[in-house]
Amino acid sequence: MQLRIPGPTPCPPEVLEAMGKQMINHRGGQFGDMLKRVTGKMKQLYQTENDLYVLAGSGTGGLEAAVVNMLSPGDKVLSASNGVFGKRFADIAEAYGADVTRLQFEWGKPVDPDGVRIALKSDPEIKAVLLTQNETSTGVTSDVKTIAAVINEFDKLIIVDAISSMGCIDFQVDAWKCDVVVTGSQKGWMVPPGLAMVSVSERGWKAHAQAKMPRFYWDFTKCKSYFEKGQTPWTPAISIVYAIDVSLDMMLKEGLSNIFARHAKLGDMTRKGVKSLGLSLFPADERYASNTVTAVNGSEKVNAPKLQQVLREEFKVVVSGGQGDLTGKIFRIGHLGWVTEADIKETLGAIGKALPKVSA
Amino acid sequence: MQLRIPGPTPCPPEVLEAMGKQMINHRGGQFGDMLKRVTGKMKQLYQTENDLYVLAGSGTGGLEAAVVNMLSPGDKVLSASNGVFGKRFADIAEAYGADVTRLQFEWGKPVDPDGVRIALKSDPEIKAVLLTQNETSTGVTSDVKTIAAVINEFDKLIIVDAISSMGCIDFQVDAWKCDVVVTGSQKGWMVPPGLAMVSVSERGWKAHAQAKMPRFYWDFTKCKSYFEKGQTPWTPAISIVYAIDVSLDMMLKEGLSNIFARHAKLGDMTRKGVKSLGLSLFPADERYASNTVTAVNGSEKVNAPKLQQVLREEFKVVVSGGQGDLTGKIFRIGHLGWVTEADIKETLGAIGKALPKVSA
Repeated sequence: MQLRIPGPTPCPPEVLEAMGKQMINHRGGQFGDMLKRVTGKMKQLYQTENDLYVLAGSGTGGLEAAVVNMLSPGDKVLSASNGVFGKRFADIAEAYGADVTRLQFEWGKPVDPDGVRIALKSDPEIKAVLLTQNETSTGVTSDVKTIAAVINEFDKLIIVDAISSMGCIDFQVDAWKCDVVVTGSQKGWMVPPGLAMVSVSERGWKAHAQAKMPRFYWDFTKCKSYFEKGQTPWTPAISIVYAIDVSLDMMLKEGLSNIFARHAKLGDMTRKGVKSLGLSLFPADERYASNTVTAVNGSEKVNAPKLQQVLREEFKVVVSGGQGDLTGKIFRIGHLGWVTEADIKETLGAIGKALPKVSA
Repeated sequence: MQLRIPGPTPCPPEVLEAMGKQMINHRGGQFGDMLKRVTGKMKQLYQTENDLYVLAGSGTGGLEAAVVNMLSPGDKVLSASNGVFGKRFADIAEAYGADVTRLQFEWGKPVDPDGVRIALKSDPEIKAVLLTQNETSTGVTSDVKTIAAVINEFDKLIIVDAISSMGCIDFQVDAWKCDVVVTGSQKGWMVPPGLAMVSVSERGWKAHAQAKMPRFYWDFTKCKSYFEKGQTPWTPAISIVYAIDVSLDMMLKEGLSNIFARHAKLGDMTRKGVKSLGLSLFPADERYASNTVTAVNGSEKVNAPKLQQVLREEFKVVVSGGQGDLTGKIFRIGHLGWVTEADIKETLGAIGKALPKVSA
């Protein structure tokens, strides 16, 4: 089966083997060594020397952790969003009582740095900006480097959802001065879902010290004090830590620039491939099309959900549908993590064969 | 290695094999079928027809979910506690703004039903009671059936931490009218950590509809609406769901009453064994000693942490130390989940051999 959704991504055999290892004491030295080793390797791929924690939960849990550890009820927050996941991030902040200004960009377009600048200028009380590097629902990657530079002009907290891009698309956490950056194990990391990772900057820790949103399970102070003992505050998802220990070695061996280049090439291949089949890309400007997930328009001629079904049932290729307002209108091909040119060729070949069966 | 801590517990080979299965689409029919199947089987072991959800997180996440879904800031809550985990449950409620009355019983003793009655009588504004069935830190099991009957006289919400007891020690969720009952995958369920399970009663749903504590990731309303589609709101920990699908079959095959009898026998064997070695049990009254974890006193003659170390290093038997105020004073032997009489004999044998090495 070709699992070509934007996460969970397929896992290499070495990773699946690690998932099957027996349990150990999560308060013992062996786990402590592994936790410190995994964290160290993860930081290299985050391009950061900030603190970094591995949480038991899914990516959305990591987003909630970022919000509740940085903010207080009533804090003014700017949400710069262009899809389902940007909206979700804002919803989380609002659920916890933040005063969220929703700066919404058209779905299919990236977050516009100038739009962010105008919003920050017009409200000096804004304390933090919520950003999504890679909007998985639309297949659009925003230019976090430029946007972060704008936000840093105003010295605001920068909290970024990099769930479906970190470790696949360049994200220089320290160089770009991003305060809290979140990802999830089932994306570029090539391991099963169940872990969220969050980095915390010095500025982030200062904000944390003032942040009054209620929290317990996700509390960074607890993460910090337990990490010093080689532990997590609550029982960690040990198997997935075993697995990511293995996959991080694979990633470091491939090298970050090679990983980025591979994803860029696979993204390009996918976009060219779907266009050559007469389909059109959902992103309005191909320069911002994501290198981890390609969103493709359905049309009056091509029924997207029907195509998904035929691909799955007749060709054993699993792609995703649209989310939110895009339900039924697009389909999405994941090409992140453990994926090769041969996989993409197989996927494109299957789409080519399925299309005549679903075209009106 | 004998991993004899009260979770994570060792996993059977069939379970570890399931952990190594490849990823699938978490929004597809195959996952949906599995989620519904797992939930159905879990309900049998919970002895409930209430709704039940599988959350990506550890047991503490399940406790937080129970609190934030049932209560509003300012709600009066009675915490009946007798150890580290009872205290933690109260801390969570307080972190989210509940007005918590802490009814604390001596560590080593169970929660006293009459104490609960007096507390409920003296404050009619109490809305909910937080209980721990099995206090893992002290090896004491409280009589939830009797305590719940008392609480039900007052028609208050009953929220129970059954993390280290559900599926090992009798807990009749429906018969005892308990509203939210929490457990975690790495305990009696014989699978790795990373899932929390929560059941929700009709009375629980009514409370939920009024509950105003902020929540997003753990929100039961979202769990309910996604479950109807055979999904979880956020990406589930697929591997651990594979694993529990297998272990639940093993448990149903063994049968609930046989599982309870096995744990009772193993608990008895462990207690008799440690006493025959000249050690004393931490629980004040053996009738309340837990059948999933045995807490044993260190003494001036027997240094508990040293015993732990010798057991681990020389006999490959891993037991736990004390927590909180009991750090350094007791050690704890886990005997829950995938454990046999032979395992306990091996553990007791190792303790017998290690004792002379650590006795002053």
